Amino acid sequence: MKIRVINPNTSASMTAKIGAAAAAVAAPGTVIEAVQPSFGAPSIEGHFDEVWGAAGVSEQVLAGPDADAYVIACFGDPGLHSARELAAGPVIGIAEAAFHAAALLATGFSVVTTLSRTCVIAEHLVQQYGFERRCKGIHGTDIAVLELEDPASDAFRRILAAAEHALVHDRSGAIVLGCAGMADLCEALQQRLGVPVIDGVAAAVKLAEALVGLGLKTSKRGDYAAPLPKVFAGLAAPFSPK
Amino acid sequence: MKIRVINPNTSASMTAKIGAAAAAVAAPGTVIEAVQPSFGAPSIEGHFDEVWGAAGVSEQVLAGPDADAYVIACFGDPGLHSARELAAGPVIGIAEAAFHAAALLATGFSVVTTLSRTCVIAEHLVQQYGFERRCKGIHGTDIAVLELEDPASDAFRRILAAAEHALVHDRSGAIVLGCAGMADLCEALQQRLGVPVIDGVAAAVKLAEALVGLGLKTSKRGDYAAPLPKVFAGLAAPFSPK
Amino acid sequence: MKIRVINPNTSASMTAKIGAAAAAVAAPGTVIEAVQPSFGAPSIEGHFDEVWGAAGVSEQVLAGPDADAYVIACFGDPGLHSARELAAGPVIGIAEAAFHAAALLATGFSVVTTLSRTCVIAEHLVQQYGFERRCKGIHGTDIAVLELEDPASDAFRRILAAAEHALVHDRSGAIVLGCAGMADLCEALQQRLGVPVIDGVAAAVKLAEALVGLGLKTSKRGDYAAPLPKVFAGLAAPFSPK
Amino acid sequence: MKIRVINPNTSASMTAKIGAAAAAVAAPGTVIEAVQPSFGAPSIEGHFDEVWGAAGVSEQVLAGPDADAYVIACFGDPGLHSARELAAGPVIGIAEAAFHAAALLATGFSVVTTLSRTCVIAEHLVQQYGFERRCKGIHGTDIAVLELEDPASDAFRRILAAAEHALVHDRSGAIVLGCAGMADLCEALQQRLGVPVIDGVAAAVKLAEALVGLGLKTSKRGDYAAPLPKVFAGLAAPFSPK
Amino acid sequence: MKIRVINPNTSASMTAKIGAAAAAVAAPGTVIEAVQPSFGAPSIEGHFDEVWGAAGVSEQVLAGPDADAYVIACFGDPGLHSARELAAGPVIGIAEAAFHAAALLATGFSVVTTLSRTCVIAEHLVQQYGFERRCKGIHGTDIAVLELEDPASDAFRRILAAAEHALVHDRSGAIVLGCAGMADLCEALQQRLGVPVIDGVAAAVKLAEALVGLGLKTSKRGDYAAPLPKVFAGLAAPFSPK
Amino acid sequence: MKIRVINPNTSASMTAKIGAAAAAVAAPGTVIEAVQPSFGAPSIEGHFDEVWGAAGVSEQVLAGPDADAYVIACFGDPGLHSARELAAGPVIGIAEAAFHAAALLATGFSVVTTLSRTCVIAEHLVQQYGFERRCKGIHGTDIAVLELEDPASDAFRRILAAAEHALVHDRSGAIVLGCAGMADLCEALQQRLGVPVIDGVAAAVKLAEALVGLGLKTSKRGDYAAPLPKVFAGLAAPFSPK
Repeated sequence: MKIRVINPNTSASMTAKIGAAAAAVAAPGTVIEAVQPSFGAPSIEGHFDEVWGAAGVSEQVLAGPDADAYVIACFGDPGLHSARELAAGPVIGIAEAAFHAAALLATGFSVVTTLSRTCVIAEHLVQQYGFERRCKGIHGTDIAVLELEDPASDAFRRILAAAEHALVHDRSGAIVLGCAGMADLCEALQQRLGVPVIDGVAAAVKLAEALVGLGLKTSKRGDYAAPLPKVFAGLAAPFSPK
Repeated sequence: MKIRVINPNTSASMTAKIGAAAAAVAAPGTVIEAVQPSFGAPSIEGHFDEVWGAAGVSEQVLAGPDADAYVIACFGDPGLHSARELAAGPVIGIAEAAFHAAALLATGFSVVTTLSRTCVIAEHLVQQYGFERRCKGIHGTDIAVLELEDPASDAFRRILAAAEHALVHDRSGAIVLGCAGMADLCEALQQRLGVPVIDGVAAAVKLAEALVGLGLKTSKRGDYAAPLPKVFAGLAAPFSPK
Repeated sequence: MKIRVINPNTSASMTAKIGAAAAAVAAPGTVIEAVQPSFGAPSIEGHFDEVWGAAGVSEQVLAGPDADAYVIACFGDPGLHSARELAAGPVIGIAEAAFHAAALLATGFSVVTTLSRTCVIAEHLVQQYGFERRCKGIHGTDIAVLELEDPASDAFRRILAAAEHALVHDRSGAIVLGCAGMADLCEALQQRLGVPVIDGVAAAVKLAEALVGLGLKTSKRGDYAAPLPKVFAGLAAPFSPK
Repeated sequence: MKIRVINPNTSASMTAKIGAAAAAVAAPGTVIEAVQPSFGAPSIEGHFDEVWGAAGVSEQVLAGPDADAYVIACFGDPGLHSARELAAGPVIGIAEAAFHAAALLATGFSVVTTLSRTCVIAEHLVQQYGFERRCKGIHGTDIAVLELEDPASDAFRRILAAAEHALVHDRSGAIVLGCAGMADLCEALQQRLGVPVIDGVAAAVKLAEALVGLGLKTSKRGDYAAPLPKVFAGLAAPFSPK
Repeated sequence: MKIRVINPNTSASMTAKIGAAAAAVAAPGTVIEAVQPSFGAPSIEGHFDEVWGAAGVSEQVLAGPDADAYVIACFGDPGLHSARELAAGPVIGIAEAAFHAAALLATGFSVVTTLSRTCVIAEHLVQQYGFERRCKGIHGTDIAVLELEDPASDAFRRILAAAEHALVHDRSGAIVLGCAGMADLCEALQQRLGVPVIDGVAAAVKLAEALVGLGLKTSKRGDYAAPLPKVFAGLAAPFSPK
Repeated sequence: MKIRVINPNTSASMTAKIGAAAAAVAAPGTVIEAVQPSFGAPSIEGHFDEVWGAAGVSEQVLAGPDADAYVIACFGDPGLHSARELAAGPVIGIAEAAFHAAALLATGFSVVTTLSRTCVIAEHLVQQYGFERRCKGIHGTDIAVLELEDPASDAFRRILAAAEHALVHDRSGAIVLGCAGMADLCEALQQRLGVPVIDGVAAAVKLAEALVGLGLKTSKRGDYAAPLPKVFAGLAAPFSPK
């Protein structure tokens, strides 16, 4: 089975990290194909970055039609619905995956994320997906996404502190990491916190494997039907749906 | 006051129609600037079309920094949050505008839209904006967006029938038209139905005027703060936030 | 266009202040008619005061049948649904207007109001109108309504402090002023806070202008149909619907 | 124990019917005092009628300060919150009482009421009280309130038909009668339908007895505290809170 | 009228306390029959304890078919829906009863309960019953259920402190006691707090009396119909529905 | 990895069918251990059956402490929270699993289940888990659970018809099968319907594999902590938590 893991930003180092996190949990026989768009933002930290991330995701779904499933490896799940129109197989966003996994392990969970300004993106997803009563809090740490790449930063310590605060304040039983770039901190955090800590990249890969293993594909009835054939204009022309 | 009305699709004829609808209700002294992106889909009838519409909207907000307010003239409000990051003045989506107006005129309203596959887009907006208890039904007519341009089509008759059905079935008091391309049918529908019929383009223009008149701008605290400066890659490079 | 701005309490000084706030934002050509009932409470600070405020609003809607639109200038929107039965044109409550405006400018807003005992009134409106996910907090300052009239009071300072607290605590992007009597503080607060601060009186006037400008009236289908003709008894006799 | 049952409309025949329904279920030792306001509408069939009903309720709570509890015998529960400010003992609305009783007997219930235009009033109460998931439908019969007084009308047959339809269509297990004037039909409907049929007047009397029997009174902390002393103007002057 | 009050745990001393609390509020002519299962946990402080409490409740409903109504005297309302299938008369859980009573006396209430780990049980009931907007907080005190039996413990003081905190922090107007074992503290707490304090046992008895007095029984249409006849296996064999 | 699949009813033939469905999708290396309680109902078709099913589930979790994960193979997810207290590894209910899977494949899904009286059980789960906006309808077929075992019955045809109706009526994109006993019909239904059809047993097995593969276990912080040690009485004595 081939799972195409799409990093919606353009930082190759982050794509590598995401690919490693995905590969680390993939079943034998699962091929992880970690890719990134040819265009867009080097990190996604707001609505505007995300708009271009969504477009980039669509490029990368179209570019890999032979994959059995797709993972969108940015916590805002940019372009999720669009990707489902384009793909035959399942498409999983990492925020979505992490929320689903957390909801199976604890009655309440908290999200610890990067910049506070992105909390509202997680909040909108929580509402759209129906986790309002399960997600007990969303906590920004004001760590920039690319700061997570810097081993000299104190990102781990700050995330740990935010998670400890969240568990007590929110009366939560699990922590969801609110950025694909935190994947490599997951295990150490879990050991320190003593509760499930969920990295969306890993969770999405396993959910994708699960759905493919069940022979299930994205519904093509209704709003996830393939896009209607159209001639797109300008720089979008290469993406015209046939 | 200048209001930049952005048609997120690339059909010039529809931009013209939207511009006319906007100008028809604009106050004396309001300048309507109807524009469309240089790229994207000729009509927006699904999530994938919308992803590129959102990107196109961002191009057109950036291209018109001197406007006092912006209207996003597609019923899915593509790129709304992103546009608010980019703009200083208010940004209004036409779905949002129509829902707000309807909620001030009737305790319940129904949406009549184009393709059934787009109903879920309206449904997501209704939920995100908080109109679940006010929006009593969303009805697809399976009229394609560009079919609305064709005077020979029976679009008016079918929309009228769907609206009549909705009023009875949903126990609604008002009708929201679910497509910018229906703007020119609004008045005739209202006369036939005897209830408020709301075209989002017109509603958005008047709401934009209202907010500008109040001296109110988009909040720059938190998630609508200007995008962080970044170097975008590839075809998105021209849109890099400074 | 004539907008009848109804102060539901009987304090003439407050009617004057409200009228001034309304006139300050009205478009050229809009006539503001600020009125108050002939009976009721001098300030509205609870459910009982509000019951009589609602009755008073109905008196003043009936007394001004030639207005194009009506504004109910008390933050509990007393008698809103009733006024819509009585009026042909749009009727806007100032709480409603402020919530709608705030929702167009920020993803979350906070309300700063007068007595803590009135917070539940705002809470009920937030729920009824569907702003539960947008309104992040409602904060009482325990300033009496008429204390706002007293230039020697420290009302401004206390409201400012409550708003500053609310922005941080609630992670909000805008402030809604929870009393018509705060209208004259709006601009100074906005300058100090650096976020949109919304006075419902001004917002309601502009929304009313917008709806009238769109040719939209209150729906007369269903629950906002004109009251059935009846002979009212006792002191209500003069208000019998014909 | 004395329970003051307040008919918010001014029809003496309806007050008598309500008083009889209340007395029929009252415990030995409970005195039912059925009263009506000196002013207002002869029947309550809309928001405007209700505004004056709420004011009338306040008159009748003030006029009976020695009662141990109060019932508001109109299905819109007009003036409920205000009455709770004025009263020391519990105040129960009949819509509220019927919803609570139904929720204890069936997982879902349906409301059958009079004019369709009043359905929205029941809908707002269902939302405010939190019964959205329990109330499966609200059905208007378009029987006028005073038509219920006329033995020659076919009200019983139409209400029965609406209830039968509701049980099937809504998958409900109980019926709530949506008008105090239907109290005398309750038993016959229950026999015909074979499910619990709840008359709010009777339910409210028993809930009031229950709360008084528990030694519980309306909370005077926060928003149900007694109204602040004020001098009311005009025809409301006699009701000025001391 | 006979009300069978079922303590779902197996502590005879707690059954006695519950029986006394029930008898203290019962009307003349009401017979309280306080019972406990022959099997299960000595106290219910988690989901697993509750599973067996639910089974025990079913034993005790079946063992008392002549009761007019049933009360389930554990704050998790274990086995409530099942008991309603088994019983003809009304069945009331004490959590449910307390929530309903509190909602009639205050616009918001707070729950003070025993172990923090049980808060989620109350939270689930609040959601299922529809009190999310009325219940402003659920506070664990980490007092074990059987510690309440020990006069030497400082349970009263700790519950009082938690309630005082809840009233301020949650802006609540009433306190719900989250354990049947707190019944004997109710009056003293109410005197100290000056707000309604609701013990579910007493509330459930009075609600049961109210429903029986109304001639209302559990709906047998749909999901509360009697269990289908089946042969149960193993230790459940004695409970096989006929 | 060993997954213990617990059929909460006592029908060995159904346990075998469930075991086969589980094995059919299990990964190489996953051992499926299909078991059933030593006591309880032969099929679960109501709340009372479910109470004993929940107790039976607890017996079977305790009896298999070496499993890596547990599946509760009855659509009401009986005893789910209790099993999570008892287990170290993940515990997945099949209703929960099916809802999660469906939500990843379609914006809306419908449930087709057995007896109409059980619809409310699914409805409660939908609400508790947060799928209210995704689950568009729950449809009873009035096929008894054990009728599914009978090849001569027309169960397939009736389920197919109900699913076809649901897709149109609910505007859904996927079907969830509401009974473990329908597992063997899943593939044929999917072929006929052309949309994802989800059997909860298979879905739960794959979700369990996914969580185990992620190294995630049930949170032991808060309400899923192991039960407190207690001496249970009577027939529950063997289950006393240590």
